[in-house]
Amino acid sequence: MTENISSPHNPRIKQTLRLRDRDQRDQRGLLLIEHLRELNQALAGGVEIVELYLDERYESIAELFADQNLPALNESLRSQIDSVTTLASRAAMEKLSYGDRVSPVIAVAKHLNCDLSRIVPGDCSLVLVIDSVEKPGNLGAMVRTADAVGVAGVILSDPICDVWNSNAIRASQGAVFRLPIAVSTALETQTWLQQNEFQIVTARVEASVAYSKFTWASRTAIVLGSEADGLGERWQASSIQGIHVPMRGSVDSLNVSVTAAVLMYDAIDRMKQ
Amino acid sequence: MTENISSPHNPRIKQTLRLRDRDQRDQRGLLLIEHLRELNQALAGGVEIVELYLDERYESIAELFADQNLPALNESLRSQIDSVTTLASRAAMEKLSYGDRVSPVIAVAKHLNCDLSRIVPGDCSLVLVIDSVEKPGNLGAMVRTADAVGVAGVILSDPICDVWNSNAIRASQGAVFRLPIAVSTALETQTWLQQNEFQIVTARVEASVAYSKFTWASRTAIVLGSEADGLGERWQASSIQGIHVPMRGSVDSLNVSVTAAVLMYDAIDRMKQ
Repeated sequence: MTENISSPHNPRIKQTLRLRDRDQRDQRGLLLIEHLRELNQALAGGVEIVELYLDERYESIAELFADQNLPALNESLRSQIDSVTTLASRAAMEKLSYGDRVSPVIAVAKHLNCDLSRIVPGDCSLVLVIDSVEKPGNLGAMVRTADAVGVAGVILSDPICDVWNSNAIRASQGAVFRLPIAVSTALETQTWLQQNEFQIVTARVEASVAYSKFTWASRTAIVLGSEADGLGERWQASSIQGIHVPMRGSVDSLNVSVTAAVLMYDAIDRMKQ
Repeated sequence: MTENISSPHNPRIKQTLRLRDRDQRDQRGLLLIEHLRELNQALAGGVEIVELYLDERYESIAELFADQNLPALNESLRSQIDSVTTLASRAAMEKLSYGDRVSPVIAVAKHLNCDLSRIVPGDCSLVLVIDSVEKPGNLGAMVRTADAVGVAGVILSDPICDVWNSNAIRASQGAVFRLPIAVSTALETQTWLQQNEFQIVTARVEASVAYSKFTWASRTAIVLGSEADGLGERWQASSIQGIHVPMRGSVDSLNVSVTAAVLMYDAIDRMKQ
């Protein structure tokens, strides 16, 4: 355990908070984790913790886990975390916390590997491709649903926001640490999907086939575009199948995370029959 | 047309802005509409405009509609709106606008009728019941999806937030003005559903039947609970059918508006076969 921190103006706090900026996360290969649910997901996902700030009400991470009725961490993980733990005052934890709720724990962790090779398709596999996503909240919401659906992985092609954004982590309920997530270009993504014999399906308002009448292949990739612009030309090839979600009312679109949910649940349900 | 407003400190602006508070909306039976998409939906839904503030760059609502390539309003509607229009300076419009984007138009309108009698079920009808909803964004998102699905109506039972909240209107993309929406108590809602021979279905994690194996009745009401607490005891009667959405990953719940979307699309698709 390193020395305690009492002042919110401690330079280590400032250095840690800089990880709220994407540039800093990218350069240092680090990310911030707050709240116990997300930390628990991250540890289960094999994330490596390099620093951990713990509210000084607790003596150690083990005490916090016990206090919250969470299963005890294994011995080696606990001692690794103890070796990088700094106890911090309430004021320091307030300074470190994002949003309204003060977290009893803030961890600095290494990025997980986001290579396409992380995704290992089986005989029957669904993959979600999110192209050029801009809003961290939408990204996280889609990862949360993809986790619940049981996809083989999520590919972020040419992402505008990164998956280690605090809002993305939170909206995903920590599922970003559990699901295999790959980051790639649109071109590399398409090549990988073709090599692995995925049928590529996109939602398009003008497509003639309704999703519920579509025959899902046993390996399917569902591609969704950015909130503002939809999918660019890169996803218009004739080998890519367009389907639509019926719109029977007055609004002209669905939220992208709603579209993702409806398509993924239908696909996983009917491709396995 | 009434006199122009140039100062953002004009008392009429202040009086109008008080409609951001629910108490004021309830007491005065009025609501605020901003942005053209929402106004257009409101007019199509028969909402009665009692005051309209228009950016003084435009001479009249007709000019704004033409400028945005929207179909012209009919003569009587146009003249009714002209009679309650006030031209306002950019500074006044900024003051009136909610959020980042300054709207060229802000309308004060009367509440639509929200009696259960607004919902007229056909032979084959889906109704969404949202119980004790707290977050306007979730409420609006569910109404937007319900509109796209083509439900017969949405019932808000014992709502905590009101449907005329600015965030709810915005998240619904104005669908709150188009779909029949009723506000009622949980008890009255159940009585109405039973009288109209609806099968009442709720999502419950512990239910044994997966939604995709469920046989939807030709009149179905899907009931979703508040974000925090789920459905209370009032929705636990044995006549109410529980179903679950499979969760195959690490997260323990879906966002309520995602659950609503998955269930509604499956129901509308399979109940009509």
